[in-house]
Amino acid sequence: MEIYSNNIRELIQELSNLPGLGQKSAQRIAFYIIKQPIEKMENLANVIKKACKEVKYCKECCTITDDELCPICKSSKRDHTQIMIVENERDLASYEKAGEYEGVYHVLHGAISPLLSIGPDELKIKELLLRIRNEEINEIILATNSSIEGEATAAYLCKLLKPLGIKITRIASGVPVGGDIENIDAITLQRALKMRITI
Amino acid sequence: MEIYSNNIRELIQELSNLPGLGQKSAQRIAFYIIKQPIEKMENLANVIKKACKEVKYCKECCTITDDELCPICKSSKRDHTQIMIVENERDLASYEKAGEYEGVYHVLHGAISPLLSIGPDELKIKELLLRIRNEEINEIILATNSSIEGEATAAYLCKLLKPLGIKITRIASGVPVGGDIENIDAITLQRALKMRITI
Repeated sequence: MEIYSNNIRELIQELSNLPGLGQKSAQRIAFYIIKQPIEKMENLANVIKKACKEVKYCKECCTITDDELCPICKSSKRDHTQIMIVENERDLASYEKAGEYEGVYHVLHGAISPLLSIGPDELKIKELLLRIRNEEINEIILATNSSIEGEATAAYLCKLLKPLGIKITRIASGVPVGGDIENIDAITLQRALKMRITI
Repeated sequence: MEIYSNNIRELIQELSNLPGLGQKSAQRIAFYIIKQPIEKMENLANVIKKACKEVKYCKECCTITDDELCPICKSSKRDHTQIMIVENERDLASYEKAGEYEGVYHVLHGAISPLLSIGPDELKIKELLLRIRNEEINEIILATNSSIEGEATAAYLCKLLKPLGIKITRIASGVPVGGDIENIDAITLQRALKMRITI
């Protein structure tokens, strides 16, 4: 028999559409929401609507932001001649968290994937070419994932950008720091061996 | 440096307050929300507000519902002389999903926990006593968790209800079906042995 009333069922349904939330976690969050003071949840609802309504793509790097330009593209402290190409905003956030990089980014919003019918036209590559044409760029770092899609995208961009005469680099791939060799997959080990450096 | 603009930061912050969502999952959901059509996310926002505003406790069993009575308490197909006492609505949902039980429930909304300063007065025990006084009850099944808090709550309720002369039972505890003995903790094994039945 149906154990939940309409409002709860609808809330669980809506929440379970969000990425990473299954039926159980949606249920857990739904009951949490229901027990909160209404003002607090009205605030959550408003923040969702506001973010969805007001957020746009940065005119330079295509990341998601409130203004014309994102904080990184706006900053004069960053090296605007160095562009790191990432698949999405979450990858950008990870590189920023790592804290080493001082250049700017370009967010592709995906990677080439024939399986998901995502071709180069679905990615923010036109915007990248425009940027390269209008600005002085010294280096482009291909920092897409080490997955099949990420590698395909990096290979595609390399072929596309090489003729422009800009220095193109790819992030290193190998054994992660602190990784146990015995737990690392064969392809990563093969690559770590192939890409070995003289010390 | 701050990589997210205000709206995104606020959305990630609000989402990471929900139970079970860390910074990473909140970030993932936030970017998903931002990329959705505004109508879809307005709907999510409205469902959250509506559920939070309209949902109340069932007058009988104290579970969460839209109406005075929840679908189970309203149903004439259920055995209203048998009450299963559970800690929360999620446990109720689990027992319903198991599908065996045909009685009604009583939701305590927690378990006795001196550590979290939750005593009997914080639970829906007054409501349970009122129910027992006003209705004809044949059996009370104590179906709280097998945790320290769940066992303490069951022991407390048993002591409280025993003098009323109603049959009181406790759900069985032991090795889960399909469980590997080698992976099961010592206390569960001790209990499974202690509670062994003659076949």
